[in-house]
Amino acid sequence: MVMSAAAKPKVVVLGAGFGGAYTAKHLHRLLGKRAEIELINQSNYFVFQPLLPEVASGTINAQDAVTPLRLMIPGIKFRMAEVLDIDFDRRVVCLVQGSKRRMLECRYDHLVIAGGQQTNLSFLPGFTEHSLTLKNLADAHHLRNVVIERLEHADVTQDTELKKRLLTFVVAGGGFSGVETIGEMSEMIRRILKYYPNIEAQELRGVLVQRGDRILPELPEKLAAYAHRQLQRRGIEIMLNCGLKSASATAVELDSGEKIDTATVVSTIGNGPSKLVLSLEKKQGLRLERGKIRTDRYLRVAGHENVWSIGDAALIPMVEQPRDAADFAPPTAQYAVREARCLARNIAARLKGKRVKPFNYTPKGSLASIGNYKAVAKVFGVRFSGVIAWSMWRGFYMLMLPGFITKMRVALNWFLDYFVPRTIVQVSTTQSRACRYARYCAGEVIFVPGQIADGLYVVVEGQLEAVRSGQGDSKIVRKLEPGDHWGDNLLQDNQQTSGYLKAVIDSRVLILQRDDFAALRESMPPVDAYLNSAASTKWSTSEQI
Amino acid sequence: MVMSAAAKPKVVVLGAGFGGAYTAKHLHRLLGKRAEIELINQSNYFVFQPLLPEVASGTINAQDAVTPLRLMIPGIKFRMAEVLDIDFDRRVVCLVQGSKRRMLECRYDHLVIAGGQQTNLSFLPGFTEHSLTLKNLADAHHLRNVVIERLEHADVTQDTELKKRLLTFVVAGGGFSGVETIGEMSEMIRRILKYYPNIEAQELRGVLVQRGDRILPELPEKLAAYAHRQLQRRGIEIMLNCGLKSASATAVELDSGEKIDTATVVSTIGNGPSKLVLSLEKKQGLRLERGKIRTDRYLRVAGHENVWSIGDAALIPMVEQPRDAADFAPPTAQYAVREARCLARNIAARLKGKRVKPFNYTPKGSLASIGNYKAVAKVFGVRFSGVIAWSMWRGFYMLMLPGFITKMRVALNWFLDYFVPRTIVQVSTTQSRACRYARYCAGEVIFVPGQIADGLYVVVEGQLEAVRSGQGDSKIVRKLEPGDHWGDNLLQDNQQTSGYLKAVIDSRVLILQRDDFAALRESMPPVDAYLNSAASTKWSTSEQI
Repeated sequence: MVMSAAAKPKVVVLGAGFGGAYTAKHLHRLLGKRAEIELINQSNYFVFQPLLPEVASGTINAQDAVTPLRLMIPGIKFRMAEVLDIDFDRRVVCLVQGSKRRMLECRYDHLVIAGGQQTNLSFLPGFTEHSLTLKNLADAHHLRNVVIERLEHADVTQDTELKKRLLTFVVAGGGFSGVETIGEMSEMIRRILKYYPNIEAQELRGVLVQRGDRILPELPEKLAAYAHRQLQRRGIEIMLNCGLKSASATAVELDSGEKIDTATVVSTIGNGPSKLVLSLEKKQGLRLERGKIRTDRYLRVAGHENVWSIGDAALIPMVEQPRDAADFAPPTAQYAVREARCLARNIAARLKGKRVKPFNYTPKGSLASIGNYKAVAKVFGVRFSGVIAWSMWRGFYMLMLPGFITKMRVALNWFLDYFVPRTIVQVSTTQSRACRYARYCAGEVIFVPGQIADGLYVVVEGQLEAVRSGQGDSKIVRKLEPGDHWGDNLLQDNQQTSGYLKAVIDSRVLILQRDDFAALRESMPPVDAYLNSAASTKWSTSEQI
Repeated sequence: MVMSAAAKPKVVVLGAGFGGAYTAKHLHRLLGKRAEIELINQSNYFVFQPLLPEVASGTINAQDAVTPLRLMIPGIKFRMAEVLDIDFDRRVVCLVQGSKRRMLECRYDHLVIAGGQQTNLSFLPGFTEHSLTLKNLADAHHLRNVVIERLEHADVTQDTELKKRLLTFVVAGGGFSGVETIGEMSEMIRRILKYYPNIEAQELRGVLVQRGDRILPELPEKLAAYAHRQLQRRGIEIMLNCGLKSASATAVELDSGEKIDTATVVSTIGNGPSKLVLSLEKKQGLRLERGKIRTDRYLRVAGHENVWSIGDAALIPMVEQPRDAADFAPPTAQYAVREARCLARNIAARLKGKRVKPFNYTPKGSLASIGNYKAVAKVFGVRFSGVIAWSMWRGFYMLMLPGFITKMRVALNWFLDYFVPRTIVQVSTTQSRACRYARYCAGEVIFVPGQIADGLYVVVEGQLEAVRSGQGDSKIVRKLEPGDHWGDNLLQDNQQTSGYLKAVIDSRVLILQRDDFAALRESMPPVDAYLNSAASTKWSTSEQI
């Protein structure tokens, strides 16, 4: 291919995680002004994913853990937009940007799909509705605020059962992410507990649930055992060989049938293809394997000469005839960064008419922090643990962090965290969605007398019942089936409940926030008419709970 | 009153702004363990309000500008909760806390109402829907992210009219808050503009709209004139003697009828009573004057021996026979802090059976920062401006900031900001409400062909029309009246618009977010049935735009 100033080849990179951002950076270095490079991402910053547990625990300010992409990779075109579709035949990416969502098309000569994976917990009932994840900056920020909210509430409530639930924290998944998350969370709570005079340390419960027979399967057994002992010493319960069955608004259920009452479940499991990749599979026949885009050894997407994929989104063979999971590149930052370098070289080679090379990499080591100035590591085959491993871990992150300014900001945060009490500022966590789903297990109580309804409850699956309790007797006032709703009268008059609302069987409920409910009812006459007629036929005023 | 260990007198303080937080602090100092002091606030931190423009401009991290109340006032009882009502006869405060909104009652012997005021812009059509405010931490955080989003979008759009609108920033109100906000915003944009290669400095427009005949009416005329010149020198347009009439999704309209195309309006005007105070007026006959709780000179609420009020919520006479606004304490932080001291002493005096004293204070001076290392100040009658005033302003804030750790955090932020480029990390600003209202002026275009609907549009007031344009001709496909809706077909099929949606007359629209719309439609069969029947009767598929 001959490059002229008139028609520069255009390389479009989708996604700015470790894979995408470093591909764009290397491409710019290799090609300079000889190619047009466009990086498209939904946020305008690069997240250093391994630091998210530290953001969630308040060690590092959210803004300081990320690097603006325009600073990180100057000289390329950056676009903050959402990709809706790709047309491989016409070689265009369809995207929307800004709030008015105008559809735009972006042409490419070479395309890199590096959008990572998306959490998919639909196989575990209730997890989508009630577990928190730790995939991006907003998640980390949210988790920190949720933990503080739990402590604020536990400090003032008089309800001992509620207090116990508020002080129980469950983390699902015992890999790197799960272990670092529970380690950091427990350290954070330990450090800020002194501000909550009504909470005793022994009232706190932290549980790590792992399906396999040990934590940190990515590391040698001895290091995992060390981490295990350290976490246990800090009072964290580790449940091995233990699968999760479901979650609800008040508990998680284990495979064994055992239930753990908790208001806070963090899930580090369940990765699946992104929405874009799923739609490409459906509409464009993109070939997926193990939920990922299958590439050849040169990082090319099977069947496409000019489409490439790397990072968590891609399934990259490390040998000619891959047989099992171990024959593919693992989804870690270390690998993604190396894949990016190889990919940028291959695209540059193609544009210059040279030969592409297969991806090869032998990892140098693995590290995991477990909080409280301790970590475990295996580097160049040597095992480390404790404070030494923790220092290596921080040093390694310092090296990996992109840009001098980000390094400086993170270092300063670490420094401050050592000397200054951790802040307990709770920034509003009001749910960002007016409609949210909730799952309730059979027998679970949703409302007790004396509460104010927080929204309209619409039964999606299962069955609820409204129960009024008088002197010694209780009477089932009404059964609610899918499509039925509860709470409209209470919301309208701002009344308190006078009875109980319970799930009869496992149920799924759509909750429409009170303010949004009021707005909708006011603005859409048919909705209001329906609610009024439903109220008069299904309920008599004396039967409200 | 004799105090015994068995029944300690209880003082409840509502609101933790300058007035409430300092009242609680002084009460604790004066009374120690001889009284039970409970501070109730919706957030668990104290906001140093005068720093909000600096948070909005990214000089200071959001978390660092605030002080956790539990750190600031140890030894008292703090409760993060929302106050719904007060029963003056029974001497209880009704509140809800946590997510399940259980109603609780909190008894008091003395009550301090210090909840401040609330923005009320209902007298200006479209301002509630489309203007941003700067009252709390979330507002400041949001404003910063909105400004960055505008720049991100302006950098990539091809639509010159849209670009102009995205780069026009209007601030309503030329008092302290408005001047500091536009000064800080303009400095922020100036500093980060280098990351946006497609935006030229001369494309930016900043407008300050002030109803009076000069800015900073709180300060002497010469200082205001200096600030005026400085802002103008930086390219900010200042419109004096200029009232605002309305705002819409794309413009603000002035009293003169002139329109300014803008996507970003910040409002620093329009304070009114809080929801709680309004409901107390209605239900309990609390006496309001000028929208505030009228107190006597001892800070007691008229007609209540054991209820007190200070800060922005209260109207406090400074003389025996107040005649005009100048005879009442102005709503500034300086006054609130002094009021708090006087109030704490008066409550302590009452509990000890001593005499209360009237509130008296002569302010020492006023300062306003105008960004770019410049400020104006009048202290002990002497005027200062430029870098000297700016240094005084920073020094004064350092003194005022509560607690050593907050001082240190803010100082560090200031230090860093001097040496390090300002970050342009844009943290998600996805609207926090599924239902939002929008206002469109007569003739305003809401959708053009090729867009993807972002939600269901329900007409609340006014009239919209859907127009299809073919070769040279355009045809009105449908008129939408209040109660009618638009977008359901497009949302269901994820199609692009093929025509225009316009406001015929000034209109108000409720927008229900696309995901929430889908959830509601799926879960509530009657809603779905209504939409289907509306679609089949009112629309034929060929008539969709």
